[in-house]
Amino acid sequence: MRPSGRNLDEMRPISIETGVTKHAEGSCLIRCGDTHVLCTASIEERVPPFIKGSGLGWVTAEYGMLPRSTGSRMRREATAGKQGGRTVEIQRLIGRSLRAGTDRVAMGERQITVDCDVIQADGGTRCAAITGGWVALKLAVQKLIKAGELSHDPLEIPVAAVSCGIYAGQPVLDLDYPEDSEAGVDGNFVMTGEKMIEVQMSAEGSTFSRDQMDQLMGLAQKGVAELGRAQMEALG
Amino acid sequence: MRPSGRNLDEMRPISIETGVTKHAEGSCLIRCGDTHVLCTASIEERVPPFIKGSGLGWVTAEYGMLPRSTGSRMRREATAGKQGGRTVEIQRLIGRSLRAGTDRVAMGERQITVDCDVIQADGGTRCAAITGGWVALKLAVQKLIKAGELSHDPLEIPVAAVSCGIYAGQPVLDLDYPEDSEAGVDGNFVMTGEKMIEVQMSAEGSTFSRDQMDQLMGLAQKGVAELGRAQMEALG
Amino acid sequence: MRPSGRNLDEMRPISIETGVTKHAEGSCLIRCGDTHVLCTASIEERVPPFIKGSGLGWVTAEYGMLPRSTGSRMRREATAGKQGGRTVEIQRLIGRSLRAGTDRVAMGERQITVDCDVIQADGGTRCAAITGGWVALKLAVQKLIKAGELSHDPLEIPVAAVSCGIYAGQPVLDLDYPEDSEAGVDGNFVMTGEKMIEVQMSAEGSTFSRDQMDQLMGLAQKGVAELGRAQMEALG
Amino acid sequence: MRPSGRNLDEMRPISIETGVTKHAEGSCLIRCGDTHVLCTASIEERVPPFIKGSGLGWVTAEYGMLPRSTGSRMRREATAGKQGGRTVEIQRLIGRSLRAGTDRVAMGERQITVDCDVIQADGGTRCAAITGGWVALKLAVQKLIKAGELSHDPLEIPVAAVSCGIYAGQPVLDLDYPEDSEAGVDGNFVMTGEKMIEVQMSAEGSTFSRDQMDQLMGLAQKGVAELGRAQMEALG
Amino acid sequence: MRPSGRNLDEMRPISIETGVTKHAEGSCLIRCGDTHVLCTASIEERVPPFIKGSGLGWVTAEYGMLPRSTGSRMRREATAGKQGGRTVEIQRLIGRSLRAGTDRVAMGERQITVDCDVIQADGGTRCAAITGGWVALKLAVQKLIKAGELSHDPLEIPVAAVSCGIYAGQPVLDLDYPEDSEAGVDGNFVMTGEKMIEVQMSAEGSTFSRDQMDQLMGLAQKGVAELGRAQMEALG
Amino acid sequence: MRPSGRNLDEMRPISIETGVTKHAEGSCLIRCGDTHVLCTASIEERVPPFIKGSGLGWVTAEYGMLPRSTGSRMRREATAGKQGGRTVEIQRLIGRSLRAGTDRVAMGERQITVDCDVIQADGGTRCAAITGGWVALKLAVQKLIKAGELSHDPLEIPVAAVSCGIYAGQPVLDLDYPEDSEAGVDGNFVMTGEKMIEVQMSAEGSTFSRDQMDQLMGLAQKGVAELGRAQMEALG
Repeated sequence: MRPSGRNLDEMRPISIETGVTKHAEGSCLIRCGDTHVLCTASIEERVPPFIKGSGLGWVTAEYGMLPRSTGSRMRREATAGKQGGRTVEIQRLIGRSLRAGTDRVAMGERQITVDCDVIQADGGTRCAAITGGWVALKLAVQKLIKAGELSHDPLEIPVAAVSCGIYAGQPVLDLDYPEDSEAGVDGNFVMTGEKMIEVQMSAEGSTFSRDQMDQLMGLAQKGVAELGRAQMEALG
Repeated sequence: MRPSGRNLDEMRPISIETGVTKHAEGSCLIRCGDTHVLCTASIEERVPPFIKGSGLGWVTAEYGMLPRSTGSRMRREATAGKQGGRTVEIQRLIGRSLRAGTDRVAMGERQITVDCDVIQADGGTRCAAITGGWVALKLAVQKLIKAGELSHDPLEIPVAAVSCGIYAGQPVLDLDYPEDSEAGVDGNFVMTGEKMIEVQMSAEGSTFSRDQMDQLMGLAQKGVAELGRAQMEALG
Repeated sequence: MRPSGRNLDEMRPISIETGVTKHAEGSCLIRCGDTHVLCTASIEERVPPFIKGSGLGWVTAEYGMLPRSTGSRMRREATAGKQGGRTVEIQRLIGRSLRAGTDRVAMGERQITVDCDVIQADGGTRCAAITGGWVALKLAVQKLIKAGELSHDPLEIPVAAVSCGIYAGQPVLDLDYPEDSEAGVDGNFVMTGEKMIEVQMSAEGSTFSRDQMDQLMGLAQKGVAELGRAQMEALG
Repeated sequence: MRPSGRNLDEMRPISIETGVTKHAEGSCLIRCGDTHVLCTASIEERVPPFIKGSGLGWVTAEYGMLPRSTGSRMRREATAGKQGGRTVEIQRLIGRSLRAGTDRVAMGERQITVDCDVIQADGGTRCAAITGGWVALKLAVQKLIKAGELSHDPLEIPVAAVSCGIYAGQPVLDLDYPEDSEAGVDGNFVMTGEKMIEVQMSAEGSTFSRDQMDQLMGLAQKGVAELGRAQMEALG
Repeated sequence: MRPSGRNLDEMRPISIETGVTKHAEGSCLIRCGDTHVLCTASIEERVPPFIKGSGLGWVTAEYGMLPRSTGSRMRREATAGKQGGRTVEIQRLIGRSLRAGTDRVAMGERQITVDCDVIQADGGTRCAAITGGWVALKLAVQKLIKAGELSHDPLEIPVAAVSCGIYAGQPVLDLDYPEDSEAGVDGNFVMTGEKMIEVQMSAEGSTFSRDQMDQLMGLAQKGVAELGRAQMEALG
Repeated sequence: MRPSGRNLDEMRPISIETGVTKHAEGSCLIRCGDTHVLCTASIEERVPPFIKGSGLGWVTAEYGMLPRSTGSRMRREATAGKQGGRTVEIQRLIGRSLRAGTDRVAMGERQITVDCDVIQADGGTRCAAITGGWVALKLAVQKLIKAGELSHDPLEIPVAAVSCGIYAGQPVLDLDYPEDSEAGVDGNFVMTGEKMIEVQMSAEGSTFSRDQMDQLMGLAQKGVAELGRAQMEALG
């Protein structure tokens, strides 16, 4: 019934390749099916003015799509002179999600910027960015720990995200682009272990009930558990 | 236990005054406690290029805060040269929410722009904007019906929104600013009748479980029912 | 002869409601006929770099129109990415006018920003903004005096503004929108008591003589006197 | 008593050199003392959308200062990414003034853009720009007439502008920079013959009376008469 | 003597992997040592206004660097709100170079946009972008030929580019970042076969003679010949 | 054979008038045939952050064209909201060229900004800007030397630039606009004495050989020698 032939609760194949760029303190290329996102983490020994002197760290994120990551070429945002509304929304979500899973006291007063650049898009780019972004962040943090700059690991349980939605009347896990563009209801679940950090559900020309919401949360928990295993494997 | 002394499931007083500006096709001033938002609906007999010739209508929204609607003066976005990320996120949410509750075939090929300008802010401005925005939209549509330009009402069940969150460990309904700035988990529920259109939950330095999510959905249903009654009363 | 039936030297009804928003140090809603402007004054204990250390205060103003304050919806300036030429011209005029009526030594080294947002427009918005802006400014200053932060009142004689013009060959006072859009000559007079601070006269497809100019100054003095009484009444 | 030793009602030496650039349809370099402005008029056979099909012409103006036209280097507006408020105000004034002196029916449906670029500034640049801009405009129009594209001259009486102000308690004509930066009251008078088109008076830390205003209008009439003779001479 | 131990006339290892993204009509990932650039070519059946109806095609290019392609994180240009001067210069060079090697009549009235995004930078990114960009362009053109939309191949001899410079007093081929940041003279040679399309030489705190220029041209010819072989191999 | 009737190796008449504006520390108006550029040099006793404290000076340049310096009016860049790609490329070239000819240690820690504004364009504006810009820079430096602020002249051999190209199959020196718009190959040579600082050659719908390149370098050396004499004469 799904265009890809997957079961309702079946994820796309996940692969996370680490160390893909020599300059960044942490990096990975995450592939969720045909959605490929390059994630890098950059450490800076300074923080935004509003937390200066607080002893707390800061994690922030930026998101971009290469112009031809999509079926037809998109305008480059640097040429357009600004980031679009969708981009801003997504990078704020990635930043909040990664911060939520970080012990900012243990991190110390420094900033880590996670850049997520979509090389190829096939639905679920923001979820892939969060999942891969956490791996890049973890690698950067491991580098700080190895260098003796952190005594305590500020990242314990992985943060990962997956989309769920109601496609052709059925709750499905991990929507690809053909499903995403047809689904009446879809959303993103950012979780750390069994607990939720962000839930964003949206209906288009449709609505959903409390029961359906609960079903989707169940699917999301299954998906995030799989993503967590892939994250741990990638980190060795 | 709540700073305002309200019960856990108690809304702030709601008032919706219609016809507050002589130019707009529909308008209201919604007051949810100390949060005051001016909503206007403007009809244009043209649609965005991507639906031209489709016979479908379009509803869009813009959101702004007057510089001194808040405790300390915010920079005017027109001076800053762009709308901030939060503004863009909110106006996209308002637009999607109102479109979700509109029969775009019945509406005919025209556009209605709903402007939501916050006069005074005390938490929950985006929810007030959706709730008041729907009233302004409905008034504009009623004008079209009265003028014989629409044979069928494209707006049936009201769309309204309310915030819920976990404050001091307890699930509470309709957060005001003092609660909002302390809550570890909070979110917004956009609903039409008993059904959900958008759910946006977010944890800051915290997480939430499936059970808590379900409790908050219950509170939201109670709140939206009250808002729906206020909307209907305002429309007479 | 005037579309509204007013006499040549008759102002529109004026109402000034103070204390309309809980956050601002001073605020009022001024109504000159169907022109409604919300004015707030915000105090900051810092001044622009170019007067730092001079001991002088600074008064500045910003002006905006809500998108549907006018007959057909205007583009929101925050979306357009910049303030239009007319907006910039008007807010510079408001700022200069209010500064001209302020004893900047008595004010002390602080800044007060007066925001004037047009809720509904029917001609003469800049004049209403100056007149109402002065009331908001005065209220903010009274707060400083009451708090013992100022020993001397930096605002003595009210600053107010009115438009005059030549409509259908006759000099008229306080043009509304139907007159304003037809008048061959019109202008704005900012005054403090009997003295002038700013005069801006402009002919469109027409010219005016020294005699006519003098007649208009006479009308303006009458109008500003009335506005001064309304300002004083509003302040109690 | 004046820094330059001029009499109260004495203009600076005026020189207007025409045909200073080979590309423009009309051009001149106007020198009012040490204020030098290059004015060009460019004809285009298209009009702005809002008058398309009306048969009317359009005159518009743009104004700029070379970065080192002033005592200390100003930031180039093209680098700053926008025209400042003062620039916008001035170019709107130049455009309105030149349009006011143009018979837009006789001009036919075309646009003439007058560019005024300040090469060296010493006070009164906007007045020099209007005075020189009218000469450039006239030259472009003469070219159209000679080419048989206009049967009727749309420019009859010259438009010129001069500044007046109250300096050291005395009304003075044609302020240079040292006077302009000290004057408590100053303004610009745009006139065509004996009639006024625009009057912009402004007091800084001061006020002015109806009588003073009248005196300044008298001075302005004297100055504009001289400028008109210089314009006519330059045109041969 | 070179930091990498290469001979003076020795290129870095080149690899060109084609078909790296499923959406673009042509794509490759070019690696010149540690400089990695992703190049995609996107076909559009429309041309810029200035050649509409001419029957000629258009090739254009855009260039970007991922924020962490460099040793320390660069600001994302989409966030900065504009492309920097260096970016604009480079993408203009890429576009001119690829156009120079294209028979725009044979191409037909369509546009191909080549996007070059630097994944990892180690000197010579603009040269890699031109060399890889030509491969992506060629693949897109082959697709048009296979689809029967072109009867004649508009791309005959490959276009490639290489840098040369004077490092430690010696002329060297294909500078990497450590050489590039030290070289007193360096430049880029864009060639097609033995002929030159663009030469850009620049001295910093140094100068160069006619003889040295000639030596560098010799090195460039050798390098471009190698690149041409790699391009042909990649295309099979 | 050349449209102007010049010999293949003949420059246009050069004139350099110094001291053309009273405010700038150095200024000249350079005329290369019908190309006229106003150059000013402005000294500031501060340097960009990246060389603060290094004891080195900085020379930078900005370039602009007056809107009607060209055959048809160009859009003013301040109105467009940004400098175009061509402008940025040119001003970066001017800055690099002038810096290359400056002893930045002898200059001391200060910045000189050279503004080059094209009054009238007829090909070769960037070369005229470099040649005239050096004269303005030299004048500013002479002022510093005379004031005893520099003990050693940081500018020894003049920096000048000339264009060369292949027009109608022949190598020609100093292209004017009619040649420039037809030439298949053209470029700019920035030199100091017999040595080169920058070479930028570009072919459009054509290519060039090593031999042709060498011929053009020969022509350039001849042209720059003439420009050097004109620079010296202007400086007296």
